[in-house]
Parts: sequence; structure tokens; C-alpha cells
Amino acid sequence: MTADLPAAAPRARFRPPAVPQVEVRGFWGSRIDAVCAKTADTLYRRCEEAGMLEQIDPDRPVPEIRIPFHGGLVTTQMFWDSDFGKVIETAGYCLQRAPNPNLERKVDDVIDILGRLQQPDGYLSSWYQRMQPGKRWTNLRDCHELYCAGHLIEGAVAYFQATGKRKLLDIMCRYMDHVATVFGPGPGQRRGYCGHEEIELALVKLARVTGQQKYMDLAKYFIDERGRQPHFYDAEAREQGRDPKDYVFGTYEYNQSHLPVREQDKVVGHAVRAMYLYSGMADVAMEYGDDSLTRALERLWRDLTSKRLYVTGGLGPSADNEGFTADYDLPNESAYAETCAAVGLVFWAGRMLGLGPDARYGDAMELALYNGAAAGLSLDGATFFYENPLESRGGHHRWTWHRCPCCPPNIARLTASIGSYMYGQSDDGIAVHLYGDSTADLDVGERKVRLVQKTRYPWDGAIALTVEPDAPAAFALDLRIPGWCRKASLSVNGTAQDLAAITRNGYAHISRRWSPGDVVRLDLELTVERLHAHPEVRQDAGRVALRRGPLVYCLEGVDNAVPLNRIRLPEGTELAAQDEPGLLGGVVTLEGDALAETTADWDGDLYRTAPPAERPVRIRAVPYYAWDNRDPGEMLVWVRGA
Amino acid sequence: MTADLPAAAPRARFRPPAVPQVEVRGFWGSRIDAVCAKTADTLYRRCEEAGMLEQIDPDRPVPEIRIPFHGGLVTTQMFWDSDFGKVIETAGYCLQRAPNPNLERKVDDVIDILGRLQQPDGYLSSWYQRMQPGKRWTNLRDCHELYCAGHLIEGAVAYFQATGKRKLLDIMCRYMDHVATVFGPGPGQRRGYCGHEEIELALVKLARVTGQQKYMDLAKYFIDERGRQPHFYDAEAREQGRDPKDYVFGTYEYNQSHLPVREQDKVVGHAVRAMYLYSGMADVAMEYGDDSLTRALERLWRDLTSKRLYVTGGLGPSADNEGFTADYDLPNESAYAETCAAVGLVFWAGRMLGLGPDARYGDAMELALYNGAAAGLSLDGATFFYENPLESRGGHHRWTWHRCPCCPPNIARLTASIGSYMYGQSDDGIAVHLYGDSTADLDVGERKVRLVQKTRYPWDGAIALTVEPDAPAAFALDLRIPGWCRKASLSVNGTAQDLAAITRNGYAHISRRWSPGDVVRLDLELTVERLHAHPEVRQDAGRVALRRGPLVYCLEGVDNAVPLNRIRLPEGTELAAQDEPGLLGGVVTLEGDALAETTADWDGDLYRTAPPAERPVRIRAVPYYAWDNRDPGEMLVWVRGA
Repeated sequence: MTADLPAAAPRARFRPPAVPQVEVRGFWGSRIDAVCAKTADTLYRRCEEAGMLEQIDPDRPVPEIRIPFHGGLVTTQMFWDSDFGKVIETAGYCLQRAPNPNLERKVDDVIDILGRLQQPDGYLSSWYQRMQPGKRWTNLRDCHELYCAGHLIEGAVAYFQATGKRKLLDIMCRYMDHVATVFGPGPGQRRGYCGHEEIELALVKLARVTGQQKYMDLAKYFIDERGRQPHFYDAEAREQGRDPKDYVFGTYEYNQSHLPVREQDKVVGHAVRAMYLYSGMADVAMEYGDDSLTRALERLWRDLTSKRLYVTGGLGPSADNEGFTADYDLPNESAYAETCAAVGLVFWAGRMLGLGPDARYGDAMELALYNGAAAGLSLDGATFFYENPLESRGGHHRWTWHRCPCCPPNIARLTASIGSYMYGQSDDGIAVHLYGDSTADLDVGERKVRLVQKTRYPWDGAIALTVEPDAPAAFALDLRIPGWCRKASLSVNGTAQDLAAITRNGYAHISRRWSPGDVVRLDLELTVERLHAHPEVRQDAGRVALRRGPLVYCLEGVDNAVPLNRIRLPEGTELAAQDEPGLLGGVVTLEGDALAETTADWDGDLYRTAPPAERPVRIRAVPYYAWDNRDPGEMLVWVRGA
Repeated sequence: MTADLPAAAPRARFRPPAVPQVEVRGFWGSRIDAVCAKTADTLYRRCEEAGMLEQIDPDRPVPEIRIPFHGGLVTTQMFWDSDFGKVIETAGYCLQRAPNPNLERKVDDVIDILGRLQQPDGYLSSWYQRMQPGKRWTNLRDCHELYCAGHLIEGAVAYFQATGKRKLLDIMCRYMDHVATVFGPGPGQRRGYCGHEEIELALVKLARVTGQQKYMDLAKYFIDERGRQPHFYDAEAREQGRDPKDYVFGTYEYNQSHLPVREQDKVVGHAVRAMYLYSGMADVAMEYGDDSLTRALERLWRDLTSKRLYVTGGLGPSADNEGFTADYDLPNESAYAETCAAVGLVFWAGRMLGLGPDARYGDAMELALYNGAAAGLSLDGATFFYENPLESRGGHHRWTWHRCPCCPPNIARLTASIGSYMYGQSDDGIAVHLYGDSTADLDVGERKVRLVQKTRYPWDGAIALTVEPDAPAAFALDLRIPGWCRKASLSVNGTAQDLAAITRNGYAHISRRWSPGDVVRLDLELTVERLHAHPEVRQDAGRVALRRGPLVYCLEGVDNAVPLNRIRLPEGTELAAQDEPGLLGGVVTLEGDALAETTADWDGDLYRTAPPAERPVRIRAVPYYAWDNRDPGEMLVWVRGA
């Protein structure tokens, strides 16, 4: 057991802005444009091609279990409703940015189908209505019944906010009204919860958008109940004539129900489930001011970030459980590091910031976003990574689809909604968590404040913020000073500020009366840094990773003349940042002279007593997120550096 | 295509002595004693427990496909006859060393069963007679029909040589007489060969022990036919209504039939199959003086030893095909490196020495024997490795049995027959390929020569050889000067010899008239050496392996105070050889002061810009073959050494 960390002092509650409140340009603007121009349509088309429409449509024949797809077969999946949820959510965000009548019409059709599918009592699950009728609520542990509902709720909320259309929102309210009768502590109710967390954070969103406390309470119920004894999944298994010991994953750690959530202190099991649970816990902690949840979350956060997180912000090293293994077990070539898990870490970190500015969370959110998550989508928005290894011999490439297609819509919806992660708004002020060219229309108490960010970030650390309150007003502006930044300077209307004096929890706190047109300038020095891993990370011993600002870099075969593991970057190797507007959509590369072992004098020997000779070699590193967008080849994050 | 190497000039043919000709003591003597005292009986008992007797016995009901075994289930296997073959072979060698009436009776019973099983036409296969009747010779590609026969032949020969009992030998001769009618180029004959090579080298043994040229010719036929077009396996598949393209391994490289054997120049596919094929080719090359085979073997040898061999003499990195992948692909933790493959390399190298002394082959034979092969058997002879990784986090341990139990009897029969690999005998002289305390009674032309080796090798490099011809006689004595040896000295009856002048192909050649009691002293300096891998071996970059004499060393967790990958051996690290008679049955360890990264100042960080601090740490390395004989834990061969 880890000793509890001291609970944070009560802090202002910062709400994220809704997506329509923020216009995103610059780096993330171009990524959103790719999602809107390509990914959003692709997601719908793949669902259509995979036969998902047949599964949800009550007016069509029940589909075969195996369906021809892109030259192979896909199997109908119990979690396909969730894919529609994420498709609808992504479409919602994109429709808000730019009209796409064709996509909107298709989404409306899907919503109409779901409306026809919904049962009179409100229940809605294409799997349990069409593929396994009569089996509803019989296997919460293994199936994805409430998980699917959660994603449909998230889709409904986003689509409502983007288009004002509330049909799916109403459908999901009816469904949740039914769910609230089924689950709970009352007589005849089930004391259950979903094996794949998601419904919790979705119910919070539903409560916020509808103003209905009952949905919030249901979210809290699912969280409070999780892992309690007698264990629900034991009882459920026995009720269904199954032996609880036959659980395929062996331990309830897999779905984080091994202990009541407030007693958990290790991030374990399936990584995406863990991130979704902790996100829901953070929401409930904030909504209910529940410090017992916050303390558990802080322990879990410390466990993750001190022992179980890749340098890219990826997480969950093992394919076996799609999740966590042992402390410091972070293999590079076999890293699972599912795109969804990094997306989930952004969700969790973003929600921890609801308790107030704290660079621990802002830094990790930025790390996962720019690296472990962003890598999941090709630059053109057309292809996807599921696993995100930190080393490849040349055989790892993005695919057009996957039999478990969770990652494509997940990175798409995160990217398209990035604006809501950039800022926090409270009654007393504004927090800027992420830098990026953008315009935000925020609510500070009763005040409307427009904040205009001008910057080339992440390529350049110069950031200008123009503050435009609708009338002069006193409030605080909190600006994250990233943990990776060694030198920062700040001015307000040209007057330098003493950063050390005003920075707390890693955020510069500027409390003043703001007038329209006030300009804050923040300069973050971007240096090329060598990162070393904790000595217990066996795979990284003697190796370094390269970082500049929020971006972790990698070597790719296409840029380098020798096989990547022959390269060594001795201490003192100078690497220069090079602006390359024509490369990979515009990136800053790192270039310099390193050493590489030469094979010239080996004469057919495989082993010898003389150390290999080295010769100078020019190397180039590119941002990790941008790898595998050119000729296929090797990739390496942790370069030999001793 | 690799250019052909120049064919070796014709050399004297060196025959290995039969096992009974050599009495082995010292290092290998104690290993043989473990096999005779423990392994030989264990092998039989496991066959009995796994239900193999039920499969071969025509007087018992045909067994179920799944049989309870040690708390689990085993599946009857088409290759079980081969396991009996190796059990009989091992028993034969052991019975020759020490009586074991109980085991002898059981083996005699098995042979009686096989005699009853044999069909009137000579055919003998428990699988095709009992489990798949009517299907004989329908799937040479995937099944193990002739492979099983080959192992039964090897067992028959060993048992005959040990006990003088020829019942199984006669059975196998009848079977091979039948096989010779089925296979061949004549009308109505099949132009086929077995998917798993083994019958070739076995037929050579049968020919030698019976003096029957027809068996030798059949071995040559199988080798000559392999990989010819039109391809036999294509025709066989079509004949059986299968599509040749559906071959599960995708390419005939898997069983080395992708090309006629004389055109092959890459070691590919299943590693054990490859080694057995090359062994048979070497036998046939020697017996027929076939330089076209020798040239191919030399190309293959060069390919293996320059690009595809672990530093331990293990081979075949991949579990997927139990074999070879790409040049320089030698992962350590996931190394398959099957015990049988290292055993097979000893077979091949030993047969290459039949063409005459050549330290290329002697060195590799010694390497594989002492390291990759010997590791496969626990010190007490009771448990077995199938895979032999070069790194373990603590989860890799020997098992008592395996559903594919090829390795236990393979390392057992090799160990128990080691005497026949130590020496070579020709009409003109004697070659000493391996050093070890022993007494050999050899045939040099018409002369009988007793050679008494006194040595503590491999722990000490001082070797005294007493030559005892039955009468004074002129002949040559060739002594291998190992490639790993930096300094050697040689004397005959106290007179120093000019080693450089008399050494050719890595063997010191002493041609003189020998009288009884002549003493040759060879001193091989054993130094602790750091080995570096070719820069293309990505997993070994920046790392060193430790070797002393023929032994490769490893670190084990039980001997070292910190996790092994935190240890670094900078150039110049002094490691001292320590005689430890009480450890691991008596070994020489390597001990010294190295450096280890310390975690003391990490304060919960997982990554940081400051390099890890190092502190001195005492380390101990033990011979690789002896690992996992104490408390379970980590193991590492390639230690960080930059």
C-alpha cells in the first residue's frame, strides 16, 4: 500500500469549454481539418462496409456473423454500437467546424435507425436485441452493454451541441431512465456495473447537458459500487451457471473491479478501461467535491507517471491484456500502447485539471496528446495505428481499418474536440492548459471573455495572448509553464513579470483587472533535450530519447543512412532544430553528427573480441507523431546514448 | 547468390569412434552419469505416462486423442515413434556405461511391441497403422513418417552396439527394405522425401553398421531428390486434393526443399530440420566423395556462422517457424534457440570433421555443445529446456516434460554419446576434436591405439595425452587449437614444439613414430574475454558477452545484488576466474567490480534529463549451461559494456 498523498487544498472548479467555444488554428487546426476532410467520412464508410448498419437496423435481416470486408472477413461485434457513438461524436464536432450535408444526412439516418431500434421500455442495444435476444444484462463483466450506451451518449451530446438536433439525446435519456430503474441498491435492482468503463463519464456529460442530477447520481452509483464485496461479477457468473474462477483474464484487475475504487493505488488491467474509469472518477470527484476519490486518483496518477508510462505518453505495454503488466515494464518494440489508451489519458488528465491548474496534469495531457495519441492518425487522416511501439524494424504500419475499430474514431473525436482541452473556465478566471493558435470565447462568471492566442507552437515557443473581456473586469489568468521548459519569460502589456513569484503548481497566475486588448506574451524556450529513463526500465538502459518542447522525436530509416541501432549519440552530441516547412506537413527536425558502428572490418565474423569501430554519421530525427507517413522503414525512439 | 567457396582439397576421411570405444570422465563424465542415473529412466517413464505405449501396442485399444498427463492433457502425436527411437538410443549408450537391468527390460519390451506392430511388408508406423490407418505415404510434407523411422534406426544401431541385441536392427532393416521399394526413380515408385529430415543420416548409420550399400544409396537418393522440380510436395498435395498454395508455412524453405540441396546457400526454415539435412548431406558427401555437396555445405556453414548463430551456439531465433528468420536477427529474450537445434549443429559440425581436421567445425561443435545444447538439461538430469533464450526476466525455467518432447531425449542421447564426438580416427592418424578427461581405444589402420587424456578441461587448459599404440607405429596426431585460444604451447615427451609451424586448419599436426607411453602436453591459456557482436545484430549493440575457453557466461539474479540490466562493464573491467568446486557441481565463476545505475536519486521520476548515476557493484557470472539450477531469477548473457 502506498501512503496517501496529502489531499489537495480545495481549488476552484474549472470547466472545459464546449467545442464550439474554441476556434482552433495552427498545428491542431490542420489536424482537425484532416479529420473533417477525410477521417469523419472514412469512419462512417468503414462502419457501412463492415455491415454495422445491418446489425443496428431492425428493418433489415439479422446479419451473418462473418461479413466480407476489404478482401477478408469481419465478425460482427458486440461493441459496434459504440463505434456508431464515436462516429456520431466525431461528425458532430466536424459539422460544427464546417458543413458536410452528406455526412449529416447519413448520421441523421443512423439516429433514425436507432430510434426505430429502441424498445418501448427505453432499452437500446443492437447486439442484445438482434444478435443475442433475450440475454440483456446477463453478462456485464465481459460484454459491452453499458459501454456502448456510454459512447452513444457522448455522440448524442456532441451532435446536439453541434447541430441543435436532440433526437439521439432524447433517445439516450429514455434509455438511461430505464437503466436507472434496473441498476441501483433498491429491492429488485442489480448492484452491477459495466466490465468496460465508459458509462460513468458519459452520464456526467449527459447530466451536464440536460441539467438532470439523476444521471450524475447514476454515474456516481456505478463508481461507488465497483469492486465492492460480495463481488457482483462472482454473483452474476453463478447466476448464469458459470464458475467465477473461469474468468478468462484471471483477475478482476483486468477491469479495475478488484477493489473498491477508493482503495485502488496501482494502475492495472486493461489500459483503456482504466483511463475511462479514472476519468469518470475525476468527474464525480469534482461534481461531488469528493476528496476520497481525489486521493485515490492522485495515488493512481503517481503510480502511472512514476512507473508505467512510456516517454511518448503511451501506456499499457502488453497485447495479452491490452494493458498494464509490472512496474517499469516498458518494452519498446513490442509495446502495445494502444492509441485509445493515450486518448484516455488525455481524458483523465483533462478532468484532473477541473480541480484547478496543476502542471502535473497539463504536462501529461500535452505529452500524450502530441505523441502517443497523435501518432494514431496518419497526416492525411486516412489510416490508423492501433499499437504504438517505440521501435520498429520496418514492419509496423497504419491500417485502413481493424476488426476492433475503437482507435480510429477515438483519435478522431479527440482531435476534433481539442479546443475543449486547451482552456479551463471558472467563475474567477481562465486557465490555459495547452498552447496553440486559437480563439476562445469563454465564460468567466457572468463575463464573456474572448482570448486570442497567436503562436507557431509547438514549433516555436513565442505565444501572444490577447484578452478581450466584454467589459473591463478583474479575474485571473493561469498559464501553464510546461515542466519541460528550462527558461520562460512573461510580460503583460510589455511589462515583464516575475515568473518565479507568481507561479504555483506549474501555472503562472496573473490576477488583475483586464481590459479589452491587453496583451500577454509568454516565451517558452524550446531546447533539444536528451531524456534518460529510470534505471529499472531495462529496455532503455544506456539509451536516450530526444525531446523538444512537447514533442518526442524518433529516427526513421528513410532519413538515416545506417540501420538505426548502429547509431550512438554520445553525451555532448549537438542536435540542431531545423524548420522544414515542406516536410511531413511542416515540422521541425533535429539534425546533427553522431557516431555509427561500421561493419567494414568485420570480414565475415559474427562475434569478435575487438569492439566495433565507429565513424561519424549525419542523423535526422522527426517528431514521433509523424512517423510512418513516408517510405516504410525502421523507427527508433530510444537511441543508444552512452 | 553467394559465390562458391573453393572446394577443400581432398582430405583424409576421419571416422568417429563408436560410443563404446571411449570412456569419458571429468566434465562430460559427470553429465553422462546424470543422464544414466536419472534422465534415461525419466525419458521412458514420461513416454509411458503420456500414453505412448498405448499408441504403439497393437494388442491394446487405440488411445484417445487426448490423454490425462501430469494434471493436464497431452495429445497423441504423429512423431511419438521418434521419441521411442531416442529413448532406445539413450538407453543403449547408458547400458554400455553401466548396467540398468530394469531399463533394459523395458526397452526390450518396447522393441517386442514394435516387432508385433510391424506389418508383413515391413512397414512400421504406430501413427499410420493405429491412428490414421490407410493413410500411409499420403503426406510426406507435413507428417513425420520417415523421420520417425530414422530415429528408430538410430535407436536400433545404438542398442545393437551397446547390447549386441539386433532385434530392432533387423526390424528396421526390413522396414527400410520396404521403403527402398516405395521410393525411388523407378516406374511406380514415389520420387518423395520426408518433410522433416532425419532418415538420411539414419540410413547412413544403418549402412555403416550393416555394411549394406543399399541403405547408403537410399540416403543419397533422398538428398539428391530434395527440392527438385517438378516439386514433389506440389504433386503430393494435388494428388490428395489439397491446394499446394495452402501450405501453412508458406514456403518450402521451412523444410529446406525450396531448392535442390546443392543450390542452397542460406540456412533457412525450421532449424532442427536444417541441421539434420546438412548432417545427412555431410555423411553422403564423405561416403561418396561428393564435392558438389561439400561446396554447398561450406556455403551454408559460412552463412550460419557469419549471420545466424547465437554467441551460445544456439540457432533459430523464431518460435513461429521454430527456425531462422533474417540475417543478424538474434533477439535475446525471445530467442527460440531450441535445444534440438544446437544438438543438431553438433551433429552437423561433427560430420564436417569427417572430411578432416578443421577448427572451424571443431570450434563450433564445442561452442554449441558446452553452451546452447548443454543448457537444455538440468545438472541433475531431471528437467529440460526447449527454448534457450539469452535473457530472462525470471520467468523461464526448465520443465519436466513438453507436449512436443523432442529435446529431452535429444540432449540426453548427445550427452551419453559424447565420446564419439571427441575423436576422429583414420587410416593415418587420430584427431582430437574435444578435450576432456577420457580414455579412447581407437583404430588407426590396423593398429589399436589407446589415447589417455588427463585434464580438468574446460576449467583448466592443461591437457596431457598419453599415446599407447599396441606396438610402436608411425601416424599423425591432430590436436585442435581452439580459435578462442590466444596462447598455446605444445610438447612431446617434454620437447617443446613450434606450434605455428605445425598447425594447419587450426589443428596441430604431429606426425611421428609413436611408442607406448609417449606423452603430449598441450597448454591452452584460458582468458576471460569480452565478445562484441557484429553491428548488424541490433539487440547486442553496446553490449558484451563474457567467455572463458569454450564457455559462454551469463549473469544470474541469484548471484548479483541489482537487476542485471542496470549493470555495466566498462572497457577495462577486471574479471577474475574463481574455482568454485562447491557451486553448481563445480564451476569456474567470473567475478569483479563493475558499475550499476543507482535509483537512489530518482525521486519518483520516470524520465529525466540528467543521466543516471552509477556506483560500483560486485558481479558474478556463471557458465550459461548451468543457469536456472538454483533460485529462479533473471538471467543475462549480453551485458551492457559500452
